[in-house]
Amino acid sequence: MKDVKVVSYGIGVIGRRLATHLLGKEGVEIVGAVDINPQIVGKDLGEVLGREKLGVKISDDADGVLSKTKPDVVCHTTMSYLSQTFDQFDQILKHGVNVVSTCEELSYPYATEEGAEYAKKLDKIAKKYGATLLGTGINPGFLMDTLPTFLTAVCEEVEDIYITRQMDAATRRVPFQKKIGAGLTVEDFRRKIEDHEITGHVGLEQSIQMIADALGWELDEIRVDPVEPVVLDHDAASEAIRVPKGHNAGSKQKAYGIREGRALITTDFRAYIGAPEEFDSIRINGVPPINQKISPCVHGDHGTIAITANMIPLVINAEPGFKTMIDLPVPHATPKHMGKYIK
Amino acid sequence: MKDVKVVSYGIGVIGRRLATHLLGKEGVEIVGAVDINPQIVGKDLGEVLGREKLGVKISDDADGVLSKTKPDVVCHTTMSYLSQTFDQFDQILKHGVNVVSTCEELSYPYATEEGAEYAKKLDKIAKKYGATLLGTGINPGFLMDTLPTFLTAVCEEVEDIYITRQMDAATRRVPFQKKIGAGLTVEDFRRKIEDHEITGHVGLEQSIQMIADALGWELDEIRVDPVEPVVLDHDAASEAIRVPKGHNAGSKQKAYGIREGRALITTDFRAYIGAPEEFDSIRINGVPPINQKISPCVHGDHGTIAITANMIPLVINAEPGFKTMIDLPVPHATPKHMGKYIK
Repeated sequence: MKDVKVVSYGIGVIGRRLATHLLGKEGVEIVGAVDINPQIVGKDLGEVLGREKLGVKISDDADGVLSKTKPDVVCHTTMSYLSQTFDQFDQILKHGVNVVSTCEELSYPYATEEGAEYAKKLDKIAKKYGATLLGTGINPGFLMDTLPTFLTAVCEEVEDIYITRQMDAATRRVPFQKKIGAGLTVEDFRRKIEDHEITGHVGLEQSIQMIADALGWELDEIRVDPVEPVVLDHDAASEAIRVPKGHNAGSKQKAYGIREGRALITTDFRAYIGAPEEFDSIRINGVPPINQKISPCVHGDHGTIAITANMIPLVINAEPGFKTMIDLPVPHATPKHMGKYIK
Repeated sequence: MKDVKVVSYGIGVIGRRLATHLLGKEGVEIVGAVDINPQIVGKDLGEVLGREKLGVKISDDADGVLSKTKPDVVCHTTMSYLSQTFDQFDQILKHGVNVVSTCEELSYPYATEEGAEYAKKLDKIAKKYGATLLGTGINPGFLMDTLPTFLTAVCEEVEDIYITRQMDAATRRVPFQKKIGAGLTVEDFRRKIEDHEITGHVGLEQSIQMIADALGWELDEIRVDPVEPVVLDHDAASEAIRVPKGHNAGSKQKAYGIREGRALITTDFRAYIGAPEEFDSIRINGVPPINQKISPCVHGDHGTIAITANMIPLVINAEPGFKTMIDLPVPHATPKHMGKYIK
């Protein structure tokens, strides 16, 4: 069996963890690395990952890397929005190279007109150059969209769907804790939201649109509530951040897929220090009703890295074009030599 | 949008419920019905379903029905084993007609050499005549195989998987309660097991083999424990059957996918009157660990009918050949006009 040749595109926090995971997998070879961060361009990927040299220099010249290494797939972990990543995908696809990306908006671009336009263009380019492009991740990409879609398969009727992800931010990276404003006063939190220093979870609209399209539900609108602070009536703390009683412990946000004034799909996202329970839950109000819970919730970073790696063979096996998670066969772990899963 | 034309093949308990469900679905037309039961052959399907006449006579001549009605798909619900159903599939496929079947062994025939031989032949016939064949159902077909496979997608590493389905038989059909020997003395239960009057759940081997193949795990053996009685230390009862303390309340059975003496996959099936809790659970020992529970468990009959109907568009959209649930795209409910889901 032949190794799968991968280029790591984006050597940030997730890119580094993903590269480390891929290096530990049988049948995967990282043949190139791309990033624009001047602090790491020119360095060996292995060194940046805190291990022995790999002979793979991080380059800011994607075209050069792709021409030289001719990979089977690019694992792409740079930015959240297609306005930021479109040119990167365009460039990679024109080399005829498959892409698995964690770009949140790419997980289901059809939630917005602009996104749908990008998807159409990317599909055309991918088909022209014989490559496949997929957006995935733990959320969006799996927990609040592909998994609930999948679970409806055992329902004769579906009335509505309510999806919750509740995370205790104390168990997550410090940058994540800061991103959700943990430890701030409520006033400071609201100011940072207004100044766009703190943003909500990216992907609630995408998740709702994926489920609606899969089920054939035509929504009147997707309403995304503002990001809200979470204020506890007791002190809480992570190793790095103290949250005094009355201060902000994190953030919560809901979004709704609405038809005729009724929420057919609700996504309820909560991440804060001191959450009493961590879980992912899906309640389908239907025949039969489905009441599902994953407890504790799936770890975000591990989950994203896993599904990005695990989708590699399904993307290589797929026909050319832009795909979403509901277009490809049932995903699964890839614990053995990656070549085993390639058709 | 055009209606999907269906022939109902098998008008037993599940076939009748499935036909009733399909008649309530937008964009589905039942154009023919096949069964060999002399008590219903020649009768109108609608009458047999306890509703107004449909103008569809139940026939024991499958060839005649298929030639005359030229359906898009056959919904097949006759028997559990390929030795019983192979000729039926052979006949249907030779009309170039797609099939969704609840035949348990068809859900993943590769668990046995004989099954794999059948699958190979059916794949060849299906491809030759341009039709697609799928085996599905709630279990096997979803809860103990496709769902656990799907959940491993968010795992970087998988050590082992433990899957449980626990049902309170009191909530199920009386024939099901009798099938599991509820109310018998333990002695009578064991005798009926020996006489093959009571059989275990069909599909544990198939479920294990599907997961193993998806993950690329080569098993040394699949071990299926004997069916065991469930004896409670208190009285229990369904509406129809009384289970005195010390008598048998139902049955339980485990199966194991083993490599190097270790169970990588365990399926643990329990159905008895008086079960304190109904649930479907999956525990993946991996990175990250996954601890998932559906509570109460998915209702078996509703779930089987739902997934059989919901797979119709995915089977029609698929390329010809014999497919399993892990070959097709992520399944989902079909609450709108069935034509919406056809590509």
